[in-house]
Amino acid sequence: MNENLLGIVAGILTSISMIPQLVKVIKEKDAENLSWLMLLVLITGLSLWVWYGFIKDELPIILSNAFAVLVNVTLLICFFIFKKS
Amino acid sequence: MNENLLGIVAGILTSISMIPQLVKVIKEKDAENLSWLMLLVLITGLSLWVWYGFIKDELPIILSNAFAVLVNVTLLICFFIFKKS
Repeated sequence: MNENLLGIVAGILTSISMIPQLVKVIKEKDAENLSWLMLLVLITGLSLWVWYGFIKDELPIILSNAFAVLVNVTLLICFFIFKKS
Repeated sequence: MNENLLGIVAGILTSISMIPQLVKVIKEKDAENLSWLMLLVLITGLSLWVWYGFIKDELPIILSNAFAVLVNVTLLICFFIFKKS
């Protein structure tokens, strides 16, 4: 329980830190600074973490990485919507 | 072992995805797009993940989050070195 709480707090903090970039990209409709290749690598890595969390049966890992997948898939979609030319 | 391998691959991928931003900031000597507050929140969260990894005795979690702490502490230092005025 104590370690789960620690994992949940850790997950909330690392999740919060992703929000500003997402808000900025959506607000400014500018995804110029994003790299689709790096987003793909990141999404693949995060998905493997979710898988790892399921195998280890650790809810904090599953939840925080699933949230990160969601944020970065949204960023990837924004990249293709907002990219110029 | 199999789950450790999965965790290590996941950790390598999420670690790789952080490198380009670090290289960009150091190369362009420009940290304008970084927020020190978000870096602090992220570093705190990642440090808690390292702690979580130690409690759970999971090497992939310890290693990948320790690497992420290193990258983001470097970004934070760059932010204060490169910031204008």
